[in-house]
Amino acid sequence: MTREALVVGAGLAGSLTAVYLARRGFHVRVLERRGDPRAPGAREEGRSINLGLSQRGIVALREIGLLERLAPLTVPMRGRVVHLPDGTLRFQPYGVAEDQILHSVLRHDLNVALVDEADRLGVGFSWGRRVTAVDRAEPAVTTDDGTAHTADLVVGADGAFSAVRTHLGRGRRMDLHQEFLEWGYKELLIGVGDDGRPRTELRALHVWPGDEGLIVAHPNVDGSLTATVFLPFDGPHGFAGLTGAERVRSFFDRRFPDTLTLIPDLVEQFLAHPPASLVTVRTAPWHVTADEGRGIVLVGDAAHAVYPFFGQGMNAAFEDCSVLDRCLAAHPDDLPAALARFETTRRPHTDVLADLSKRNFVELRDKVRSPLFTARRKVDLALHRLFPNTWVPLYTLISHTTVPYGEALTRARRQDRVLGGVTAAVAGAALAGLARRSRNKGRWS
Amino acid sequence: MTREALVVGAGLAGSLTAVYLARRGFHVRVLERRGDPRAPGAREEGRSINLGLSQRGIVALREIGLLERLAPLTVPMRGRVVHLPDGTLRFQPYGVAEDQILHSVLRHDLNVALVDEADRLGVGFSWGRRVTAVDRAEPAVTTDDGTAHTADLVVGADGAFSAVRTHLGRGRRMDLHQEFLEWGYKELLIGVGDDGRPRTELRALHVWPGDEGLIVAHPNVDGSLTATVFLPFDGPHGFAGLTGAERVRSFFDRRFPDTLTLIPDLVEQFLAHPPASLVTVRTAPWHVTADEGRGIVLVGDAAHAVYPFFGQGMNAAFEDCSVLDRCLAAHPDDLPAALARFETTRRPHTDVLADLSKRNFVELRDKVRSPLFTARRKVDLALHRLFPNTWVPLYTLISHTTVPYGEALTRARRQDRVLGGVTAAVAGAALAGLARRSRNKGRWS
Repeated sequence: MTREALVVGAGLAGSLTAVYLARRGFHVRVLERRGDPRAPGAREEGRSINLGLSQRGIVALREIGLLERLAPLTVPMRGRVVHLPDGTLRFQPYGVAEDQILHSVLRHDLNVALVDEADRLGVGFSWGRRVTAVDRAEPAVTTDDGTAHTADLVVGADGAFSAVRTHLGRGRRMDLHQEFLEWGYKELLIGVGDDGRPRTELRALHVWPGDEGLIVAHPNVDGSLTATVFLPFDGPHGFAGLTGAERVRSFFDRRFPDTLTLIPDLVEQFLAHPPASLVTVRTAPWHVTADEGRGIVLVGDAAHAVYPFFGQGMNAAFEDCSVLDRCLAAHPDDLPAALARFETTRRPHTDVLADLSKRNFVELRDKVRSPLFTARRKVDLALHRLFPNTWVPLYTLISHTTVPYGEALTRARRQDRVLGGVTAAVAGAALAGLARRSRNKGRWS
Repeated sequence: MTREALVVGAGLAGSLTAVYLARRGFHVRVLERRGDPRAPGAREEGRSINLGLSQRGIVALREIGLLERLAPLTVPMRGRVVHLPDGTLRFQPYGVAEDQILHSVLRHDLNVALVDEADRLGVGFSWGRRVTAVDRAEPAVTTDDGTAHTADLVVGADGAFSAVRTHLGRGRRMDLHQEFLEWGYKELLIGVGDDGRPRTELRALHVWPGDEGLIVAHPNVDGSLTATVFLPFDGPHGFAGLTGAERVRSFFDRRFPDTLTLIPDLVEQFLAHPPASLVTVRTAPWHVTADEGRGIVLVGDAAHAVYPFFGQGMNAAFEDCSVLDRCLAAHPDDLPAALARFETTRRPHTDVLADLSKRNFVELRDKVRSPLFTARRKVDLALHRLFPNTWVPLYTLISHTTVPYGEALTRARRQDRVLGGVTAAVAGAALAGLARRSRNKGRWS
């Protein structure tokens, strides 16, 4: 007998879940509040932000056979280019191996590819439908047209402000931690130059660190880059204070001088859009079970929204889908057991990711340009080169492996103790030459 | 010009806020989801739990001139009677001074007195009205009958699951931390004996500590006591496992043997009611301002719900009302300034209370019966007797003073360091005799 699955949300997590479930033999329907992303003009409606696809996301896309097809839509990023206020550029490679790179991709392109693939597998989509109620006992989801959709498995993949989660928590003991960063963001386009070529190195993530503001830019296949400007909401140098053209220009001129060259219409772009906010959400439980082996589960941002500073939001969501699929495979005839296993094995790791993503905000803001941080990072990478399997930096573990987040942190802490201890002093001296060599080897230009 | 105030919630915090605002010259209307607590039969509808009124609550009731009138409705509690599994009773006085006592009062009686007082001051009440929307810009509150109530000041006093808070947070950066305890509670009545007299000491709070379950009982003016049984929700000895009469009886017989004597129909009472849950809520911001010096603010559980284990939920809510009133007095013509001052001065302290209330759960559960804890507490109280103004135990600071929660904690930590350090060893020996004496002096029986 075919089992029915209902996925709420056709964003990245929702459409990927739909693909996995369809491949596992479920009859799948997806409900989405917005319109079809494949419709003409839809690209402009959605969030245009591009994302860094790393190992966890890559593994999931490979599992569903979509990776090869996506390749032309991505730009490889081999490391960070750090832009310092004095105009200096500094390159920090992501890792030591050829495959330790990230891939920049537009959210919209990826979403369309996933929806197309789900469509191909027979998944049905209902666009423009808002969830108005969830019946936990059935389970069933009612939409704003009055239809009650029942299913064996309901998946809430409807984002950080998930309606499924809200309804799931009503009158139940559901923990919820929702925390906004005092910083927000705006996106600016670094268009291609008048000669039709990229205005800066394309195959890297660009970072402008700073304690008063922070910019990150991802490359696009057309040669442009999308810069995300992170600033405090309040204060004279925050979004609230940067109101007139003169103030904006003088702020960027002082803090991020080269951006005015890279983005000739920076001031106009900056003033044209309101700032968006950043939220961390943790919740528990993620699932409920109903009679006859039915149940509801949350995945992606609905279960664990994180700040974007470790570049893991999408990758963690994709890994959720992959882990959920493995749990369903392990309990083919016992959905409640599969959901319980999913939550038990997965939640501790995404809790760790939430903390790491907060920590990386501080790192990107304050430390990336510090000589001590840079030196330590070099020693870290040099040790990784010497002992590629036993010494792996935290960033590498998170971005270039599928070691669960919690285990990655434990391992990195152990390494940190070594790095901070006697060994570090000895190794530091011994590795100085190696680090120098590796820096030259690792240069991208 | 008379300013309009709208209070959502006619519970303890809401009705007290209404009284304060009416006394300050506001024209006040209160909206309440439930019916009038003064209606016949209303007592049975609401939560019957009784509460321990301590200094912060007392000060607020004195400020509005209601304390004397409430006295006949309260029972003084001079300390804790600890019931040990072997049948031993141990008395722990709350403090050293005559006024360091708590007053047990029924939530219902207190609520009726406050509603009556508000009524007398001309406050209007709308019963049975649910909030369906909040307009932050106006501000205005819409109820389920379609009426939009505008006001200069809107106060959300609608409890831990505040509708005002939810609407206030929509589409805004509002932090919310909601956390449920893995333990819940049921209430049991310790009726008067067949001789018409209390079955146990009436002028004390009774505590049955234990790591598998915890009971607290408050006295009532009619000679009965209300016991609150706290148990884990899950597990064989939790609410989920204690299903049949035999299991319930054997559990209480083993863990809390004297309760079966005090409550002859314990098993029937226990099985008759579903368990209730316990929640901690922290949120920020507590207030928003609108044009023309208007605003919305949260007070009481809507702003900061805490576990009941420090007995401070109501007292903190009452102190909120008192602090808010002082802020309004300090800024008579500037409501936004008053609300900002209220949040800035008050929130750090209720955040501390949330932590202390969690910590006291562990203390009540694990430590009250431990000899080390008892000894330390005795030294603490003995030092308080020696240096009544400079050495004040944390419990005393929280319950018997109005020292802000955060300052109380800072002061207690300083004392703890002394108590844990060299001085403790010296003082411990020197004070052993004193503690012995004081224990005898402090005995209630």
